[in-house]
Amino acid sequence: PAKRVAGQRQDVWSIINEAAAASPKQPIVNMGQGFFGYNPPQFILDAAKSALDRVECNQYSPTKGRPRLKKAIADAYSPYFGRELNPETEVTITTGANEGMLSAFMGFIEPGDEVIVFEPFFDQYLSNIEMPGGIIKYVPMSPPKDGAERTSSAANWSIDWDVLEKSFNEKTKMIVINTPHNPVGKVFSKEELQRIGDLCLKHDVLILSDEVYDRLYYVPFTRMATLSPELAKITITVGSAGKNFYATGWRVGYLIGPPELIKYVAAAHTRICFSSVSPLQEAAAIGFEQADKEGFWDSAVKEMQGKIDRFCQVFDELGVAYSIPEGGYFVLANFSKVKLPDDYPFPGHVANRPRDFKLAWFMIQELGVAAIPPTEFYTDANTHLAEDWMRFAVCKNDNILDDAKERLRGLK
Amino acid sequence: PAKRVAGQRQDVWSIINEAAAASPKQPIVNMGQGFFGYNPPQFILDAAKSALDRVECNQYSPTKGRPRLKKAIADAYSPYFGRELNPETEVTITTGANEGMLSAFMGFIEPGDEVIVFEPFFDQYLSNIEMPGGIIKYVPMSPPKDGAERTSSAANWSIDWDVLEKSFNEKTKMIVINTPHNPVGKVFSKEELQRIGDLCLKHDVLILSDEVYDRLYYVPFTRMATLSPELAKITITVGSAGKNFYATGWRVGYLIGPPELIKYVAAAHTRICFSSVSPLQEAAAIGFEQADKEGFWDSAVKEMQGKIDRFCQVFDELGVAYSIPEGGYFVLANFSKVKLPDDYPFPGHVANRPRDFKLAWFMIQELGVAAIPPTEFYTDANTHLAEDWMRFAVCKNDNILDDAKERLRGLK
Ligand SMILES: CSCCC(=O)C(=O)O
Ligand SMILES: CSCCC(=O)C(=O)O
Repeated sequence: PAKRVAGQRQDVWSIINEAAAASPKQPIVNMGQGFFGYNPPQFILDAAKSALDRVECNQYSPTKGRPRLKKAIADAYSPYFGRELNPETEVTITTGANEGMLSAFMGFIEPGDEVIVFEPFFDQYLSNIEMPGGIIKYVPMSPPKDGAERTSSAANWSIDWDVLEKSFNEKTKMIVINTPHNPVGKVFSKEELQRIGDLCLKHDVLILSDEVYDRLYYVPFTRMATLSPELAKITITVGSAGKNFYATGWRVGYLIGPPELIKYVAAAHTRICFSSVSPLQEAAAIGFEQADKEGFWDSAVKEMQGKIDRFCQVFDELGVAYSIPEGGYFVLANFSKVKLPDDYPFPGHVANRPRDFKLAWFMIQELGVAAIPPTEFYTDANTHLAEDWMRFAVCKNDNILDDAKERLRGLK
Repeated sequence: PAKRVAGQRQDVWSIINEAAAASPKQPIVNMGQGFFGYNPPQFILDAAKSALDRVECNQYSPTKGRPRLKKAIADAYSPYFGRELNPETEVTITTGANEGMLSAFMGFIEPGDEVIVFEPFFDQYLSNIEMPGGIIKYVPMSPPKDGAERTSSAANWSIDWDVLEKSFNEKTKMIVINTPHNPVGKVFSKEELQRIGDLCLKHDVLILSDEVYDRLYYVPFTRMATLSPELAKITITVGSAGKNFYATGWRVGYLIGPPELIKYVAAAHTRICFSSVSPLQEAAAIGFEQADKEGFWDSAVKEMQGKIDRFCQVFDELGVAYSIPEGGYFVLANFSKVKLPDDYPFPGHVANRPRDFKLAWFMIQELGVAAIPPTEFYTDANTHLAEDWMRFAVCKNDNILDDAKERLRGLK
């Protein structure tokens, strides 16, 4: 095998999903990977079904996406940009946001180019940057000092500005931003974005802004590309119809940016996946066209906010500190006070990982609750920063959340 | 932009589809890209619609694919292999065959490794090999000497064995086979495959066997991996549910091979696309489970054979020589006798390409028939071998084929 895959550990998603499926505590409550426990709204499912009846919706879409979807996205995002986006040159459709980000790296990163990434990071970034030969420069984002003892807003996670400023050099080609942030739940403030953006403008660095949770925020949300025309020119925004419409298995992502950037990203996408899934692009188009009218965006925010409150109540009860998300649907909770039995029979691939992997395994086996060990979002040198934490996805039905709470009370 | 995309010409698929859409002769008959002009069978569409009602079918599939689909594919292919394939270790699902092939290259090719490719080739191979830094060694496949004058079977395209043998060296890591071949329509004989396979065994070279048209053959068809246990050990077979079930826009491909190969390909796929489209994987599973019972495979062959015969009749009429496909749905026809007006106003991106691009443009504008200029399947040095040919996809409704014939009579 090639070096890029030879040494790879199994991804955390497969580890946790496989452990969950094999747990004795069935049915398990799987709050690990961020898949939804419920379906897309009926009007979008209906749109998908109608699309399946249309010959052209079952065949190759244009490589850059179905015109109707590009138009629907351009229309949905134009108000944020304060001008009409051109659907043909400023939007391109990808096979999920993941392949969209890979396409951006493939389109712009040469071997040896540097890419700045905040730590913790969504794990796929790393291999996606390394595929075209990019070198990653990490910039720490730190939890509030008393984060292990005291519950507080994810806003209190802070960027190490000193390290960030020093990370830029003549090899720096791109920075990856993620807001709302996975796994932290932080929504970057306008001031933070402006400060990052100014550094990028100064150093002539592109911004890849992963905003896949851009419809789920509980504090004011700013899109990097909409801060100024100068920043719009250097920013590629990443979005996800799967996350927007509760259908993570549909693999419909999109990128928005200036024509000179989108052109090359689309060229890379054409060579990676050729084109993306046609009938579900059509359904996503109808989703964007009708979401406002259906009141979908507003109710999505309210519902998710309710789920966060409902679920986190158990941590308040248990005296477990957590980071209150400003956006998205992940909650980081601190389990430093939970004791693990010394002699617990952890399997090899868990025994040799940090404490959070053991916590995750233990909870899956003993409580039947799956969560994600967040050291996967850190470099090996820094896993000590996260080994007491667990990440919970709350995008599940309320009765499942209640079940999870009941099970977690077993930790007492 | 990165070098890998900076110099890229627009792909032939977008050029022809965009020209077709802009032609004055609407509705145009588009026999260019190999998309079907009709829908998947109803039982598969119904399966897709039911899948859309199930929560877990709309969310992330496991990275290696939905277990039901892997099992259905293992069951469908086990008879060819003469043993039970293990669905968990010998099958993995990809986002179309294209991303499957990219995953194979990403899994096994290091910068500087050589990959042998027959010329003509399906164009995406080249960039897919180059992404991980592979070097392509071309081996000519030549049409019969009198191919321009006389219609004969695609079987008469022949491999230059001398060049092939000399192409192997210590840097050779992989060879790409394609049978039934796109664009030639050749089905490699058992003897040809054995001879290629022996060379690979001797030189310790992996075989990537692109068999996406493996259900459409009009002569006996052999699958490379089924020739011997030794060859099974070094072969990754590429398949496509989209091609099998008339749904090229579904992006469900699959790879079959020994566990030690599939493991690394799946690891690469996980980092490229993470996972593939869930509800359509479920539909494809039901397709494979029920196709035999529905008599689908047999009728698919008969129907396509009928379309080839029906359409090619116009070439017999016109005295246009063509290569009779042994498999798949592409027909290569020789247009050396067709004169193009000297002063035709070709747009720039067509004027500077070989004669077949001009032929394609002319036919789109004047006849309203789109076909693919096959020089795109050749290296620049060899376009003279193909510039009189055009590739037609016959996977269209019979009335459309009849319309195309009527339009082509205008060439007389
Ligand atoms: C690879 S999983 C995709 C993102 C997500 O849903 C998660 O972080 O759980
Ligand atoms: C990139 S198009 C995929 C293959 C095909 O259908 C063709 O060769 O026309």
